[in-house]
Amino acid sequence: MAISPVASAQSQCVMSSSFNSTESTGFSCLNPLKLPNITKFKIALCQLSVTSDKQRNLAHALHTIEIAVEQGAKLVVLPEMWNCPYSNDNFAKYAEDFDDEDASPSFSMLSQVASNQGITIVGGSVPEWNNGLLYNSCCVFGPDGKLRAKHRKIHLFDVDIPGDILFKESDTLAAGNTPTIVDTDVGRIGIGICHDIRFPELAMLYGARGAHLICYPGAFNMSTGELLWELVQRARQEASILFVATCSPSRDSNGCYPIWGHSTLVGPFGKIIATSGHEETMVIAEIDYSTIQLQRESLPLEKLRREDIYQFVDKSAWKP
Amino acid sequence: MAISPVASAQSQCVMSSSFNSTESTGFSCLNPLKLPNITKFKIALCQLSVTSDKQRNLAHALHTIEIAVEQGAKLVVLPEMWNCPYSNDNFAKYAEDFDDEDASPSFSMLSQVASNQGITIVGGSVPEWNNGLLYNSCCVFGPDGKLRAKHRKIHLFDVDIPGDILFKESDTLAAGNTPTIVDTDVGRIGIGICHDIRFPELAMLYGARGAHLICYPGAFNMSTGELLWELVQRARQEASILFVATCSPSRDSNGCYPIWGHSTLVGPFGKIIATSGHEETMVIAEIDYSTIQLQRESLPLEKLRREDIYQFVDKSAWKP
Repeated sequence: MAISPVASAQSQCVMSSSFNSTESTGFSCLNPLKLPNITKFKIALCQLSVTSDKQRNLAHALHTIEIAVEQGAKLVVLPEMWNCPYSNDNFAKYAEDFDDEDASPSFSMLSQVASNQGITIVGGSVPEWNNGLLYNSCCVFGPDGKLRAKHRKIHLFDVDIPGDILFKESDTLAAGNTPTIVDTDVGRIGIGICHDIRFPELAMLYGARGAHLICYPGAFNMSTGELLWELVQRARQEASILFVATCSPSRDSNGCYPIWGHSTLVGPFGKIIATSGHEETMVIAEIDYSTIQLQRESLPLEKLRREDIYQFVDKSAWKP
Repeated sequence: MAISPVASAQSQCVMSSSFNSTESTGFSCLNPLKLPNITKFKIALCQLSVTSDKQRNLAHALHTIEIAVEQGAKLVVLPEMWNCPYSNDNFAKYAEDFDDEDASPSFSMLSQVASNQGITIVGGSVPEWNNGLLYNSCCVFGPDGKLRAKHRKIHLFDVDIPGDILFKESDTLAAGNTPTIVDTDVGRIGIGICHDIRFPELAMLYGARGAHLICYPGAFNMSTGELLWELVQRARQEASILFVATCSPSRDSNGCYPIWGHSTLVGPFGKIIATSGHEETMVIAEIDYSTIQLQRESLPLEKLRREDIYQFVDKSAWKP
């Protein structure tokens, strides 16, 4: 089993040898588009059902990933909290310590199947124990089964809509502190988890760092889902005209936290390339990165940005 | 006639005595919401037809504003280039020098009707001559008829979609250099013109400065209109959860530049409060600023922003 866990860093970027990158020129200036060797490929968004049976959730995810590969997917994305019902009561019970191989069956399964199938996996998220803290963490594995990056949800979801929904992730979870962007065989991918998608700044940061795709595993609820889910994923591609993929669990109407669903792939200019309803399903769609360049050339936004008026600062140290 | 033209400044903010404001705490920290005395009022978005007859366009706009007032509007918004067919060939011919009363009939008409009717007008835009340069400029008038602010389009529209549309505003127009936010009887209003709406940074700047509403007169075309118009106006309210109003000319299918139309009022969370088709029409809708505070409290995004990771810098000097 080829597992290379991240010990202490909250995120890790590993250069893929197939990716021809240059040094970042900073947040305020978009790098010229550099494409990976594979520019056209199938992505699978696995809108999994999640139960209280963790073993079942693992076996179900494994089986679903294998089906995705049979259908030609080179990149498989899982939902937020796919091994665990989404509630503060459950996160600790289902959490794994990725540094302890015996205590991280979700991590191990994803590593193995990525290696066995020779694909890249954006592993949704699972609860992670680390140094006594609980995180909502997404692991990205390469076709060799190695961990390529780990993202801990930065913006925790605290909501209080009177008469509708009250939920505070911060009651149990700690927030990550690091944006996560990773070079893979299928492009430079930025990672956000659920509420991270509400912050255009994070997407703009990824855009400026040359991302081709941002993946957001997410479990929007019925209120914010209907209001905002489609809007925010279409809006996030504005960061620098790129692709956005979201992956949600399917809805369990009898569950403690009914989920909106609607896993979606959005292309440049906010075009919905493929989407779904709320039932368990798999969205298989083709990504063609050449369209990014085409769109950027037809409407050259980047050269119109006015750094004399407003400016972003990327405050975290990062080198491609 | 009460006209107080701006001589050289590209924008001007005048405090309304009815508005209780405090000093800005900067771009990276949203000010607490301060509401104007009038928190609930009717806005009119006048989706005017525009012809090659400038006198007709002026009379038609005047008549439409009077109808809007009869219907209870306290704030009237006009479209981009409402006195002039939208083409590079026309901008110079229809341009006005706002410093020369005799050479600025559009400016004078808006000032007079604002004063006569006791309303605030966001005067869409007209071509402006100033010091030998041509701008796409929006004038905001208060109920006393005085000019309260002038915005010159910052991000000019240059597009080249092969086989579809080629248009370069920069062939004739000069770009403005200053964001424009103005305190009025009906709230603190940020101004953008058309392509300015594609830049989330400008809206975020206005949001951080405490805007309640951003008005974008705009004339999206048939390509970008269908793709992006609804998306970008709904996305811009994300800046800090505020209202966004857009106002387009109506479509002239035989004109040189068929326009998308669909003037719209968007509320917090991207809710479309009122919208229109492409025909000439007037959108009358109610704005209730109290909903801003409600939404901000229910989903407190601002305190989750991570200035340790990303930061905006507002580079233009501004004091409320």
